[in-house]
Amino acid sequence: MTDLPESSFPKPSRGRLFVLSGPSGVGKGSLLAALLDRVPGIVKSVSATTRLARPGEVDGVDYHFLTREQFVADIAADRFVEYAEYNRNYYGTPLAPVALLRDQGMDVVLEIEVQGAQIVRTVVPDTVLIFIQPPSIETLEERLRKRGSDSEIRIAERLSIATAEISCIPLYDYAIVNDDFDHALDQLRSILVAERCRVPSEPRQ
Amino acid sequence: MTDLPESSFPKPSRGRLFVLSGPSGVGKGSLLAALLDRVPGIVKSVSATTRLARPGEVDGVDYHFLTREQFVADIAADRFVEYAEYNRNYYGTPLAPVALLRDQGMDVVLEIEVQGAQIVRTVVPDTVLIFIQPPSIETLEERLRKRGSDSEIRIAERLSIATAEISCIPLYDYAIVNDDFDHALDQLRSILVAERCRVPSEPRQ
Repeated sequence: MTDLPESSFPKPSRGRLFVLSGPSGVGKGSLLAALLDRVPGIVKSVSATTRLARPGEVDGVDYHFLTREQFVADIAADRFVEYAEYNRNYYGTPLAPVALLRDQGMDVVLEIEVQGAQIVRTVVPDTVLIFIQPPSIETLEERLRKRGSDSEIRIAERLSIATAEISCIPLYDYAIVNDDFDHALDQLRSILVAERCRVPSEPRQ
Repeated sequence: MTDLPESSFPKPSRGRLFVLSGPSGVGKGSLLAALLDRVPGIVKSVSATTRLARPGEVDGVDYHFLTREQFVADIAADRFVEYAEYNRNYYGTPLAPVALLRDQGMDVVLEIEVQGAQIVRTVVPDTVLIFIQPPSIETLEERLRKRGSDSEIRIAERLSIATAEISCIPLYDYAIVNDDFDHALDQLRSILVAERCRVPSEPRQ
């Protein structure tokens, strides 16, 4: 069989990098879990944190749980794609596992907040940035209340952060309104499938 | 309900413009027909041509069948987004119906060849260009033979044109390998769904 020139059939050996952001309570975790369940060839990168493990959380699965000393040493050694301090704890995306997975041809998705997303974009310019948004701030408020894990003050704080985050949508490539779960999941999956068909404009970084 | 700023929820009033190209015999017509059948809100723009109608083809549905004189008059009157001479016949995309459909919020897809696609891109920069490719030139040859409508010389000519067309894939946004029909259709639909989630970088033209 005569193979066509390789450039005609872009089958990148390197996996793609996706970032998923969205306000707390918007349902991005459930959407991502359902996506990973249905689509082969994509994995979530495990973040590192200095916060304590909650009951049921497994080190290396939910998070890499590090001491503050370990985390600060990793920052100094440039071992994070991005990191941020949030609620007096550090959160970060370890560089090496992401690079390793992508070298193996796996697509990798990071679930990180707005500032982290922008930093990742500067490090890996062809990162695909996806924002999950609520139909309205009221819907988000309703969902946070139903979740029942936050105080009134905490809910007000989350809504104020959400409004700031939503104003950053123009910095993203795609925005999905999580109104109907199945519809939003179809859109998320479609973005992944479409990006796998994208003709690379330059060699993948 | 407090509406979020409009820029946060990009719901463009204007429809998007898609171009579908690919070698003769690659199956893009069947893929497009299946897509239009399944996805609401997208229509195919009917091209004009000077070639004769094939058995079963309907004027105004498959093509606007024009005489060479009518076509040349329409060129002179700037009535085409793009036009090209291909296989000794003129093919063109009438401007007015595309603009009208998009103004009504419909996504419009043009099934046109490589040169036409590039011209459309210069006229409407945010056009999404999709290329349907065969798994190999041999597969395409097999399909053309099975179709049984072409002479040996005509098949050789089509394959030579196909090879030239395939070398233009880097000019496209997306490339789909039509190996398995359902898989290719899912990819085509995903591109459409994903593009509808795209955050516009500037007002749609």
